[in-house]
Amino acid sequence: MPYNVIPEIGEFGLIAKLAKLAEPTLEAVPELIEGIGDDCAVYRLSQELLQVSTTDILAEQVHFDLLTTPAKHLGSKAISVNVSDICAMNATPRCALVSIAVPASFPVEMIEELYRGMAQACMEYGVAIAGGDTSSSRSGLVLSVAVTGEVPPDRIALRKGASPGELICVTGTLGGAAAGLRLLMREKGIMLEHLENRESYDRNLMADLEEYRNAIRSQLLPVARLDIVKYFHSAGIRPTSMIDISDGLSPELQHICRSSATGALIYENSIPIGPQTRLIADELQDDALTWALTGGEDYELLFTVPKESWKEVSAHSDISVIGEITPPEDGIFIRDIYGMKIDLSTMKGFDHFRS
Amino acid sequence: MPYNVIPEIGEFGLIAKLAKLAEPTLEAVPELIEGIGDDCAVYRLSQELLQVSTTDILAEQVHFDLLTTPAKHLGSKAISVNVSDICAMNATPRCALVSIAVPASFPVEMIEELYRGMAQACMEYGVAIAGGDTSSSRSGLVLSVAVTGEVPPDRIALRKGASPGELICVTGTLGGAAAGLRLLMREKGIMLEHLENRESYDRNLMADLEEYRNAIRSQLLPVARLDIVKYFHSAGIRPTSMIDISDGLSPELQHICRSSATGALIYENSIPIGPQTRLIADELQDDALTWALTGGEDYELLFTVPKESWKEVSAHSDISVIGEITPPEDGIFIRDIYGMKIDLSTMKGFDHFRS
Repeated sequence: MPYNVIPEIGEFGLIAKLAKLAEPTLEAVPELIEGIGDDCAVYRLSQELLQVSTTDILAEQVHFDLLTTPAKHLGSKAISVNVSDICAMNATPRCALVSIAVPASFPVEMIEELYRGMAQACMEYGVAIAGGDTSSSRSGLVLSVAVTGEVPPDRIALRKGASPGELICVTGTLGGAAAGLRLLMREKGIMLEHLENRESYDRNLMADLEEYRNAIRSQLLPVARLDIVKYFHSAGIRPTSMIDISDGLSPELQHICRSSATGALIYENSIPIGPQTRLIADELQDDALTWALTGGEDYELLFTVPKESWKEVSAHSDISVIGEITPPEDGIFIRDIYGMKIDLSTMKGFDHFRS
Repeated sequence: MPYNVIPEIGEFGLIAKLAKLAEPTLEAVPELIEGIGDDCAVYRLSQELLQVSTTDILAEQVHFDLLTTPAKHLGSKAISVNVSDICAMNATPRCALVSIAVPASFPVEMIEELYRGMAQACMEYGVAIAGGDTSSSRSGLVLSVAVTGEVPPDRIALRKGASPGELICVTGTLGGAAAGLRLLMREKGIMLEHLENRESYDRNLMADLEEYRNAIRSQLLPVARLDIVKYFHSAGIRPTSMIDISDGLSPELQHICRSSATGALIYENSIPIGPQTRLIADELQDDALTWALTGGEDYELLFTVPKESWKEVSAHSDISVIGEITPPEDGIFIRDIYGMKIDLSTMKGFDHFRS
């Protein structure tokens, strides 16, 4: 019997199918304002307060490689990627449920390190670990974390609120996590080669990774931008739309434009790429801009604000204005350093089922 | 380097370690009234309303075998086991987050069946699918579901509220899910034998499973007892303690007694075991009482009520009074049909890491 395998429809095709099947379930719960389709689901707790919730599932050999990822960092990252989704709603994270399926042969010490990383990250974000589940796994390690947050209705930022003329902003620098991943993969390759040739793996023979510390850190230990959410609150900024950059700037900008029914024009020379990322790209003969646009896992925030907020966003040293929202018929473009306009919709983001 | 592997400390040892690491995170969120340790976490939304939340992770070859489990049933069960935890708090389920890590080679049709099963179960419980996550998996299928529910503070049932003299009650019949699992394992063995001998697997040669329909159904398609929660509300019954029976009557009763600092005495001849379950036990030369006490996966409710509620609980045809809560020094015992008292604390429940 012929059948379709998932790579043919891809991750977004699968999500679309789920969303369609989930639709009839929404009727029973009118308090659920937003279901599948934004960074978080949105549930009305009262007239004054919304609850947002999100979940991420991380699988060994898909999202992480235990050869290059310390267990504690992995635990921390599992929390941060969820808190990042909460931040993308302009909300404050509150509680986490943490589940783990782990091969019975794993050392307890490693699982404790994993939990320790989760607990430490939660402490930093002010999140309580409220519960979870543990199970053995006949195959690899799988982590599943769900986080809830809260935000008043007049502060929430959805993907769909952008309008032509508004400024497009990003936090931090982009492409660093992709650079870090490629460095780690290179080191892993060298290590495995040593093992295959039965040579001892001498730490002194390793490349000195100290100078690439930041890039490796953004890959292994990303930090959700809760500081930016707090800045928005204190500076009186309300993003008209927001998303976190988990799959690269280009697909995330397209999500905002599709949800808001707008176009966008961003400028290559405004995209914040760290000098270290450029250095690594040169060394690996790769392209730092491509990493920033489609590399993913930076967990920075991409958001839009009215032009009137320019002064407030510019006052923050870690926010860059990279372009402007345009009418939908103008499409979604990047103007490169030579003045050429390139259509971003032809660039693909990361698909877990196709990589 | 010597290290501990998980089976040495077991599932509960692992949960205890997590609970300890999670403890310092609780301080940041005073609204969290109960963290790890009950069927659900409990979060105060307002003076009038509590939110309860739970999560379960199901792994292929640990919790289910795709050779004997239709994908749609699996999806439904993933929802029901979570809703059962919500019911155990005497709460009404509201929203679900559903995550799935699936091998890229899986047919899309199968994943759709899985989602269809989840959506159908949600419709039956009045639960909205609010969001989720999808990922590929390099190993088996892993499902992770989180469900939230709501309950007024004066109705919530924790594990810790039982007092000596109160009645111990269970819903439905016990041991059926364990009986169904053993039948399915037997049929799978026969099927694999046919395959090994390269014989065609003729459906007509299969045992007629129709007469075992109920037992197989309770294994593959358990139903959370939301009907009982509704009955409690309408009949004005407030259980003083409650838990759902996922690991067998014996360990669940011990959870209630440990949390409430009480003993218990139950009577073998009061434990509801269906005639079909006894028949299957005879056929497989196994023991139906052992299945009821330690078999697990029945997803019925175990609860306590004051003696004054005897009339109301007895009025429901699907509730059985099976014993009485005793002082802690009396221990936790079952009186068998010969009048012998057997110490339940010497019986082990199911441990995912030791099976």
